Amino acid sequence: MHAITKITTSVKAFPLKEGGGTDSVHTDPVYSYAVTHLHTDSKISGTGIVFTIGAGNREICSLIEGLAESLVGCEIEELMSQFGVAFRQMADHPQYRWLGPHKGMVHLALASITNACFDLWAKSRGVPLWRLLLDLSAEQIVNTLDLGYLEEVLTKEGALGILLDHENSRSEREEILELGYPGYDTSIGWFNYSDEQVRENVKKAVAAGFTAMKLKVGSPETERDIRRAYLVREGAGADAKVMLDVNQSWTLPKAISTSKALSDMSPYWIEEPTQPDDVFAHQTLAREIAPIDIALGEHVSNRVLFKNFMQAEAVKFVQVDCTRVGGISEFITVSLLARKFGLPVVPHVGDMGQIHQHLVLFNHIAMGHEALFLEHIPHLREYFLHPSVVNGGIYETPQEPGTSSDFV
Amino acid sequence: MHAITKITTSVKAFPLKEGGGTDSVHTDPVYSYAVTHLHTDSKISGTGIVFTIGAGNREICSLIEGLAESLVGCEIEELMSQFGVAFRQMADHPQYRWLGPHKGMVHLALASITNACFDLWAKSRGVPLWRLLLDLSAEQIVNTLDLGYLEEVLTKEGALGILLDHENSRSEREEILELGYPGYDTSIGWFNYSDEQVRENVKKAVAAGFTAMKLKVGSPETERDIRRAYLVREGAGADAKVMLDVNQSWTLPKAISTSKALSDMSPYWIEEPTQPDDVFAHQTLAREIAPIDIALGEHVSNRVLFKNFMQAEAVKFVQVDCTRVGGISEFITVSLLARKFGLPVVPHVGDMGQIHQHLVLFNHIAMGHEALFLEHIPHLREYFLHPSVVNGGIYETPQEPGTSSDFV
Repeated sequence: MHAITKITTSVKAFPLKEGGGTDSVHTDPVYSYAVTHLHTDSKISGTGIVFTIGAGNREICSLIEGLAESLVGCEIEELMSQFGVAFRQMADHPQYRWLGPHKGMVHLALASITNACFDLWAKSRGVPLWRLLLDLSAEQIVNTLDLGYLEEVLTKEGALGILLDHENSRSEREEILELGYPGYDTSIGWFNYSDEQVRENVKKAVAAGFTAMKLKVGSPETERDIRRAYLVREGAGADAKVMLDVNQSWTLPKAISTSKALSDMSPYWIEEPTQPDDVFAHQTLAREIAPIDIALGEHVSNRVLFKNFMQAEAVKFVQVDCTRVGGISEFITVSLLARKFGLPVVPHVGDMGQIHQHLVLFNHIAMGHEALFLEHIPHLREYFLHPSVVNGGIYETPQEPGTSSDFV
Repeated sequence: MHAITKITTSVKAFPLKEGGGTDSVHTDPVYSYAVTHLHTDSKISGTGIVFTIGAGNREICSLIEGLAESLVGCEIEELMSQFGVAFRQMADHPQYRWLGPHKGMVHLALASITNACFDLWAKSRGVPLWRLLLDLSAEQIVNTLDLGYLEEVLTKEGALGILLDHENSRSEREEILELGYPGYDTSIGWFNYSDEQVRENVKKAVAAGFTAMKLKVGSPETERDIRRAYLVREGAGADAKVMLDVNQSWTLPKAISTSKALSDMSPYWIEEPTQPDDVFAHQTLAREIAPIDIALGEHVSNRVLFKNFMQAEAVKFVQVDCTRVGGISEFITVSLLARKFGLPVVPHVGDMGQIHQHLVLFNHIAMGHEALFLEHIPHLREYFLHPSVVNGGIYETPQEPGTSSDFV
């Protein structure tokens, strides 16, 4: 028995080395976390993180403390056996809901709380998150989810069906636990890096075993974007997957023209081309620039907007982030939706890959999602108690109990 | 000259009388404001409000203080001459932007700031907001807006065009200033009111001169919704406009079936039938239940989502609220969009109609929007220094300088 006795919060903030983490829109990031701590009557505690780039952490912590109040006194197994209900009660809190709903800071607070609940649950069973999730029955998984507002595309029965359909073939996919999950390198080409730095980083990434990497574009001078994109392609080779990340800085007309101008270097995807609520702009763009694919999700707040992007065929690579949507629970919901629509999930890693390394293993084994690759950003390794280990471009399967979210 | 010397914030919270303000989702509201105060080197100060239903005010105030810092030292005429630029800089602040973008609490903070800037501007000229806006040239109006991410449907030239096209015919519409703007009564049928109370309130509303009124529905028992809807229709008469407000509590399948079941009492609109990010659900619903119209906007965060709803033909009555989107500036942007799409603007009044009574006059006179009616909720009258005056169901044109946002 592990009952939640007290809830506290803390802020972790880590300035980056010069130019690191910069993109065309976020020019001055301080990688930060608003952290939920679930204390129990035993020695175990749950840690949940949600990511920001500096501002707002204190305010999110204050929201967490207000929103999580109802969890005090809950026994963790009992709570998680119907977590979908608790999730909905927090998401639809009669006063906090007004501040979203299901988006912005109040949803970030919910993510931090949810992630702490799953962390405590896995630790209380003494297993890593991926193991916990794989050990649950389809019914138990679905009971952790809120499928509300998805009725016309994904019912409870539909969600159960996806999980049950992949049960018998699990063993084929479990070899990923030994092989490790492929990573891709996001740190070769932050926006403020010089061309020379990018060239060097590409060399290092290739030498380290990465066959996929990402460059920040979205410069006011399209020429700079094009020059750097070709520079990466040249260094990485024709077979490497090179992704271009715009971080929302283009208008639709500019997205169409610049994507076309970049098509000859064969980007594997164009990421976040424009404003992340704009389903129709992305739909138009997807049609205009096919066969170039669109990736997005880093700033898509909830399952409902993801549903709309999928219905519109406005996204190919679903970059849902469990530190943006309402935590691990809504991440799984969106992954089920993506499976239903036949789309790959390639998470954005606001958590630096710590939690998502568990979740992509679950997605692959339990839902049959392709084991494509997971974003890798190493800048905060030294601050985590159990940093993810990436060797030869491959994430090693984490073995410590919980969600790998504890800080040193 | 009125330069901003200091920015402070305050919280105003007003518990309601029993059952007042309740709906199917927000069951326990405390009507509240996170208030921005712009102090100047003169005697004038600017007051900006943003609405919540209780939780989160303190956190919004903290965001306001961080986000508005850059305005200290600005001279108000100079600031407002290019307010669109300042608005974008705050909306796209390199760290705060992560918390939205353009939605949730960080956007509520921006709304409060923006509304304070317009309040200070109007007061510094000694005129009510509607007069200030009508006195500005089309170019000056457009310079207060951020039209980013709308390029494919509304350019700067397009926005100017709408205003210029309606300049010559303004005098015909200026008679509204004498006649007053029609109101509709939202307070007849809060969710927790008994049938008897609703019946009484309808009588009072009719006696007070209202020909339009709104009932809260969205009960788990559809029968209750139907019974009460007919009860209002009976009391209000066949010619009255009766609106039904679901406050997002239906799923799409339930929205379709219940709207159809309610069609015989001829609702003037069905409001917020389901989750407010769900463009496609509303599109499907609009097609299924035509000719019943859909109203929404109370929880639509920004111009981009409004654009999508309009592109999808998923909304008829645009209920943009300057205490939900980024303040008066984005309210005008959305009103221009609505004009472009030929849709009426009927604001939701998180401000209790204090600011919107100015804005609907501007929309009607300067853009040619139909003077349909403005929501009226009297519960906070006693707390405002210059409460809106509604007589015979008609809003009297406010004459005091500013946006009518000061509290007693």
